[in-house]
Amino acid sequence: MNTFMNLAVELATSNRFAPPPNPSVGCAIGTPESSKLGQGHTQRAGGPHAEIMALRDAAGKGNSVVGATAYVTLEPCSHHGRTGPCCDALIAAGIKKVVATNLDPNPLVAGQGFARLRAAGVEVEVLDPTDPMAIASRELNIGFFSRMIRKTPWVRMKVAASLDGTTALNNGASQWITSPEARADGHTWRARSCAILTGIGTVLADKPRLDVRLVETSRQPHLVVVDSDLQTPLNAPFFIAGRTVFIYAAIRSDARQAALEALGAKVIYLPGYNAQGQPTGKVDLTAMLTDLGQREINELHVEAGFKLNGSLVREGLVDEFVVYLAPKLLGQGAGMFNIGPLPELAQGVALDFKSTDMVGPDLRIVARVQGRDNF
Amino acid sequence: MNTFMNLAVELATSNRFAPPPNPSVGCAIGTPESSKLGQGHTQRAGGPHAEIMALRDAAGKGNSVVGATAYVTLEPCSHHGRTGPCCDALIAAGIKKVVATNLDPNPLVAGQGFARLRAAGVEVEVLDPTDPMAIASRELNIGFFSRMIRKTPWVRMKVAASLDGTTALNNGASQWITSPEARADGHTWRARSCAILTGIGTVLADKPRLDVRLVETSRQPHLVVVDSDLQTPLNAPFFIAGRTVFIYAAIRSDARQAALEALGAKVIYLPGYNAQGQPTGKVDLTAMLTDLGQREINELHVEAGFKLNGSLVREGLVDEFVVYLAPKLLGQGAGMFNIGPLPELAQGVALDFKSTDMVGPDLRIVARVQGRDNF
Repeated sequence: MNTFMNLAVELATSNRFAPPPNPSVGCAIGTPESSKLGQGHTQRAGGPHAEIMALRDAAGKGNSVVGATAYVTLEPCSHHGRTGPCCDALIAAGIKKVVATNLDPNPLVAGQGFARLRAAGVEVEVLDPTDPMAIASRELNIGFFSRMIRKTPWVRMKVAASLDGTTALNNGASQWITSPEARADGHTWRARSCAILTGIGTVLADKPRLDVRLVETSRQPHLVVVDSDLQTPLNAPFFIAGRTVFIYAAIRSDARQAALEALGAKVIYLPGYNAQGQPTGKVDLTAMLTDLGQREINELHVEAGFKLNGSLVREGLVDEFVVYLAPKLLGQGAGMFNIGPLPELAQGVALDFKSTDMVGPDLRIVARVQGRDNF
Repeated sequence: MNTFMNLAVELATSNRFAPPPNPSVGCAIGTPESSKLGQGHTQRAGGPHAEIMALRDAAGKGNSVVGATAYVTLEPCSHHGRTGPCCDALIAAGIKKVVATNLDPNPLVAGQGFARLRAAGVEVEVLDPTDPMAIASRELNIGFFSRMIRKTPWVRMKVAASLDGTTALNNGASQWITSPEARADGHTWRARSCAILTGIGTVLADKPRLDVRLVETSRQPHLVVVDSDLQTPLNAPFFIAGRTVFIYAAIRSDARQAALEALGAKVIYLPGYNAQGQPTGKVDLTAMLTDLGQREINELHVEAGFKLNGSLVREGLVDEFVVYLAPKLLGQGAGMFNIGPLPELAQGVALDFKSTDMVGPDLRIVARVQGRDNF
């Protein structure tokens, strides 16, 4: 079993850039005698799902899958998409058993795929949630799980700093603190996200493209700019084909809105209010995440500066950090997050280190806010 | 070969707390047929060296070592200590061949041990400096190598911080940022050092003992206090048996000196001067390291605050950092090192990450100043 499920997870993982906002799923079809009949993975959103690709692969090789087992990294769908429900296709092909890592996280549909299979006489096995393959499948699609269950994206914040925690010198210099290898690795996290988020401060200071260039991808993530006063320049280099630029603002400006929308941007006003009901002049970041969930953003990849990073952390909106530490000391300058001084240690944000890996000369730390993945 | 040399390195490593200021050395004696005859490691300074212990071990087991090979993690000594030269003992015992990882780093004696062995007809093989066992032996005794070659200690600075680089809140709270596991691990680095260094700021604020408590050791490292104005309290808890407290000062105070010396402390005046020849009122830290080298300090383990840490880093006196990062965010507060803002990224201190390991929930990063170990 493990070999086929490992293959299915590997297929889903290695092809994770294209499917969002669909989950990235892998499927392997085999027999108890361990011969592989077909394999597939989710195509770009709107394209066939993993199960369909695996059935086509088997058919293309002249392999009958009658009586075989399908290993799939998510519950097969029971709804009508472009290619019809995967359940029906598996049933029609004569699949005898389906082994799946996880239920579909959407509470409205979870289990319906399995029920449909069982009703047609297909044996169904679902892995225990603590199974490493179940964990790997969920982690791979944690943004999809988050959007389905919490209705908001999984928010992952990328930070590049020196060992002493400095992200920019006082004069703003920050290019480059980390190595080319770390920057390329950063693009793999961009590439798996549905959208990259930044702030107007970074837009004006660094003129970033915030696209995926250093790794191959068939899809550019959308871009989200937190731009309370609608200052985004019309010649910003991030207006590129194949992505939507969402600009969240607090202060209305019809003229600038019209100019930005002429470039294809979507301008959304979500002004924040303080406890006295007075407008803060800033974007309501919590409301923004809800809005982004409705816009099918699974993973939101944050690359912003000290201030916006700090606002997101302070408001408890960040789920995970990907921190690249360069082997150097840069002394005093901008830190990682403007979350202000704390009165006591116990008020710090408690994390778990999920992984630590060398990336070229730099160290990559993935740290998750404690308890944040309990959904 | 490798098995015996691995054993010798392991003996030296696992018994590294006792020997300083002697190097920690291991010795295994065996035959080409791979049977082990004896093993030993350096005892506490003044006690027998590894070779003598291994010969005694073999004799105690009734094993003849005539014609056998001795594997040793440093060139056997040729001088008369308490137990006589190890070379003579190896020759007298009938050892046929000596395999050693390294030459003695003392330029005045390097090679004399090997010459003495060869003159007596003993075959000598010295590992290539790039051999992993040669590297491991040198790393284990890097403080001894430093003192012999550079005439100053190997300076290792320990830092405990949150992931965002904060070592204390603005109100001074810092106990505890890291876990009990990390603190116990920190004591293993204290235990292998010859002396622990701190500053008067830490002494007054934290009232630390700065001894080895959380791991077993037969030897307490000495203590060095940078205390320009001789403010060390007479009831400081670090005046413990078995160690010397070295207090480096800049401003003379005969009364306080006498009171501290009555407690067994050694007070050393090393005032610094600026470029105009005016006294700075601060200790000359460079001169202090030279003085500590003369006092047989191999590894100097620094646990100090933001300011003294910063002075040592700014003056280029730190060779290596052991940084424990706790999985938490603590926001703005004291950083790791007061090295001030830099005008450009290229002026940062360039490091290499030597190792990254989880210690309980925390991450330990050992980082070395680039090129600093080229001696």
